[in-house]
Amino acid sequence: MPFVRLEVPDTLSPERVGALGDAVHEALVSALGVPQADRFQAVTRHAPADLSIDPTYLGVSRGKEASILTIMLRAGRTEDQKRALYRRIVEGAARHAGMRPQDVMIVLVENGPEDWSFGEGVAHYAPDALEAANA
Amino acid sequence: MPFVRLEVPDTLSPERVGALGDAVHEALVSALGVPQADRFQAVTRHAPADLSIDPTYLGVSRGKEASILTIMLRAGRTEDQKRALYRRIVEGAARHAGMRPQDVMIVLVENGPEDWSFGEGVAHYAPDALEAANA
Amino acid sequence: MPFVRLEVPDTLSPERVGALGDAVHEALVSALGVPQADRFQAVTRHAPADLSIDPTYLGVSRGKEASILTIMLRAGRTEDQKRALYRRIVEGAARHAGMRPQDVMIVLVENGPEDWSFGEGVAHYAPDALEAANA
Repeated sequence: MPFVRLEVPDTLSPERVGALGDAVHEALVSALGVPQADRFQAVTRHAPADLSIDPTYLGVSRGKEASILTIMLRAGRTEDQKRALYRRIVEGAARHAGMRPQDVMIVLVENGPEDWSFGEGVAHYAPDALEAANA
Repeated sequence: MPFVRLEVPDTLSPERVGALGDAVHEALVSALGVPQADRFQAVTRHAPADLSIDPTYLGVSRGKEASILTIMLRAGRTEDQKRALYRRIVEGAARHAGMRPQDVMIVLVENGPEDWSFGEGVAHYAPDALEAANA
Repeated sequence: MPFVRLEVPDTLSPERVGALGDAVHEALVSALGVPQADRFQAVTRHAPADLSIDPTYLGVSRGKEASILTIMLRAGRTEDQKRALYRRIVEGAARHAGMRPQDVMIVLVENGPEDWSFGEGVAHYAPDALEAANA
């Protein structure tokens, strides 16, 4: 269910971007209990001039690899789960993609169960009677 | 009012992407009653490696043309309207763009009437007294 | 805290896109009280065919430079603040980037304080006890 957008500088190698995506998904699975198969991500690469990221806001020293991850997900996770998610994303990003923890910004946007269709025109998390019978 | 982002594989031809956009808009008009002229869409094409879409989650068999549509819209639609929207999008995508129903994923994000400005710096759905007088 | 996406036609020069980003940030600072250093933006350039923007919806005459700004921010701003934001964005876009007020569309999406991490895996606006002690 989460849909993750990764906005990364185009100087990050495809291998490292892929590893960053893996890290995000692993954290979603371990911190939020997202199913392993529930992986949906889109990467957008930006020229340096097209990513404007403050280098010091809130005392975090951001560098040339700073990236912004936006995660759309169903409402219902606790603050503690979200904090765990952030910690695990940066741990995995460091381990798998060699990214500095300061360079990983994360923003969540929540919606409802009826706001997702995973194909076939069905509202999988809020099916009507007919859809539920066919599932 | 809806703003639609279409994240598609760069292997889909421009003609088919355009037809997919038409299908989405037609479904918004017929299922949600959106005005015909209220069309705002942005397409982002992704290299295969930059779209990570699980091929089987929830039993839906997704292929190389799998695309993700995110639709921002004002809150207020019923679950039934949203289910109708999903059905009509995939029907139109099949008819107009030759897309498999399994390859069309849809995510909605809602906001309020005061969260939209369609130009000229006006909050068109939540104008103040002066703006309303000028409209 | 706001994260701004600028979807612009690829015919806008980099200088004007940068000036548009400046205008948006200046308006966020002056209308919403966002800190000066709290600037996070990503630009996506679209070929004309990939930006579908109605030329007359709601009586606003949009042209070839029409752009869509989506701003993710914490909930809590009043309607008046949002109206002021829209006005100041278009004023700044005209002054700094030479853009017509009709060509600046704005959409807001809100979330909660716990939905932001500005790096280091910390929920900066909703820290737990340990994170707060380290801050």
